[in-house]
Amino acid sequence: MNRKIMKLKVVKIGGKLIDDASRLEKFLSAFAGLKGNKILVHGGGSMASRLSLKLGIKPQMVDGRRITTSKDIEIVTMVYAGWINKNMVAKLQHQGCNALGLSGADAHVISAHKRPVKEIDYGFVGDIDSVNATFIRELIQKKITPVFSAITHDGKGNLLNTNSDTVAAEIAIAMSDAFDTELMYCFEKQGVLENSEEALSVIPVLDYFSYKVGAAEGFIHHGMIPKLHTGFDALKRNVSGVMIGNENILDENVDVFTRLKL
Amino acid sequence: MNRKIMKLKVVKIGGKLIDDASRLEKFLSAFAGLKGNKILVHGGGSMASRLSLKLGIKPQMVDGRRITTSKDIEIVTMVYAGWINKNMVAKLQHQGCNALGLSGADAHVISAHKRPVKEIDYGFVGDIDSVNATFIRELIQKKITPVFSAITHDGKGNLLNTNSDTVAAEIAIAMSDAFDTELMYCFEKQGVLENSEEALSVIPVLDYFSYKVGAAEGFIHHGMIPKLHTGFDALKRNVSGVMIGNENILDENVDVFTRLKL
Repeated sequence: MNRKIMKLKVVKIGGKLIDDASRLEKFLSAFAGLKGNKILVHGGGSMASRLSLKLGIKPQMVDGRRITTSKDIEIVTMVYAGWINKNMVAKLQHQGCNALGLSGADAHVISAHKRPVKEIDYGFVGDIDSVNATFIRELIQKKITPVFSAITHDGKGNLLNTNSDTVAAEIAIAMSDAFDTELMYCFEKQGVLENSEEALSVIPVLDYFSYKVGAAEGFIHHGMIPKLHTGFDALKRNVSGVMIGNENILDENVDVFTRLKL
Repeated sequence: MNRKIMKLKVVKIGGKLIDDASRLEKFLSAFAGLKGNKILVHGGGSMASRLSLKLGIKPQMVDGRRITTSKDIEIVTMVYAGWINKNMVAKLQHQGCNALGLSGADAHVISAHKRPVKEIDYGFVGDIDSVNATFIRELIQKKITPVFSAITHDGKGNLLNTNSDTVAAEIAIAMSDAFDTELMYCFEKQGVLENSEEALSVIPVLDYFSYKVGAAEGFIHHGMIPKLHTGFDALKRNVSGVMIGNENILDENVDVFTRLKL
């Protein structure tokens, strides 16, 4: 499955990079300059939290996960699918990249269901059921670059807040039938750190066994576990490479980042 | 030019209908049920003003036109291209209409320039230069229904707030090369009124001469003048029909509305 002719990069940009205007600009410039087929997926969590607080709505978190009320889904849709998405699209257009912003509701491209209520009712939070790879491939064939916000829908008229690492992974998995697909997670750090206090202690290759040991023994920072879990899941499901690093990861000459390995 | 084979309806829904949840639902249901090729364009002005006020930003208006500061363009993009657009798309998907939400920046579909500063600096307000009719036609051929928010871009990285009546008219004009195109303006009233105090005094056919007389003598409400100006401009530029009415205009059996005539 690793010898498909057409290559595709699915790049996800995380919250803290989006919040830093100069790093975001550098990232978008590098992304626009990437040769070949590409897809961008973005989060935007902290901007949504700031808007909530300004509107007098205190974000409710349980174990680091946001509870999304009917008011919250309005706010995250405004921030993610509205300002962040369209601002990135306009900036990419300026750089000569023919970007098209999408939520999962658009052209029914990502279907999800509302997370079932067990101990916690997460509200308008979606778990992905399917990605319309055909529609995405048709855009790519027209030299259009899809830019996804992490909002999906349930087909019953409800928009759903969805983890952006998962959106990126599910898109990469769905595209792997037709493309040799790499998934790149960009965030504020240079990669997965051996010591979370040491910014330069980047692990160049993290295999699945070491990840399990690192997670169990606690040397891998607990905030990284869901991202790594999602990344390894993508590798198991035919994505040909998963890399984690900062905006420099898009530069072919930079080799400081973490590559996952099964 | 009126005998093209394929028909297309460009439907614009205005602010006060969007604000009324039950009328909006009725409108979206009727729009989803419309047979044939169709495009939706929406405004959303009063919701943006409410959000501005909640954030402590007083909307600045000159002669009924909004001045769009850098903070305002964030707000209108969040509201128009974010919540209103994606909520409508999700609701249309639920009704079986394969909707795709767009701003003018997406796939570079509507290019505009920042309005030049003369007596008044309108800020991030765009006047349209071109509409990419080819891209829109390709979507329609795939049975996708484009849903446009009234946000455009200048190709230099700036998003621009654009009058939604004008967005609808410019799309209808651009599509008229390939389609027999009708433009329908839906708002809270049944049509253009002969007496603005009398909701039932709908003018069935308003010709250009009567419009000019009505505008000069003041019996046509001054708030209607820009919409009528834009509608007559569309008729002059090959759009085959322009109708103004409320959400019932989408029902083929309803004949209370205003049709413009050159």
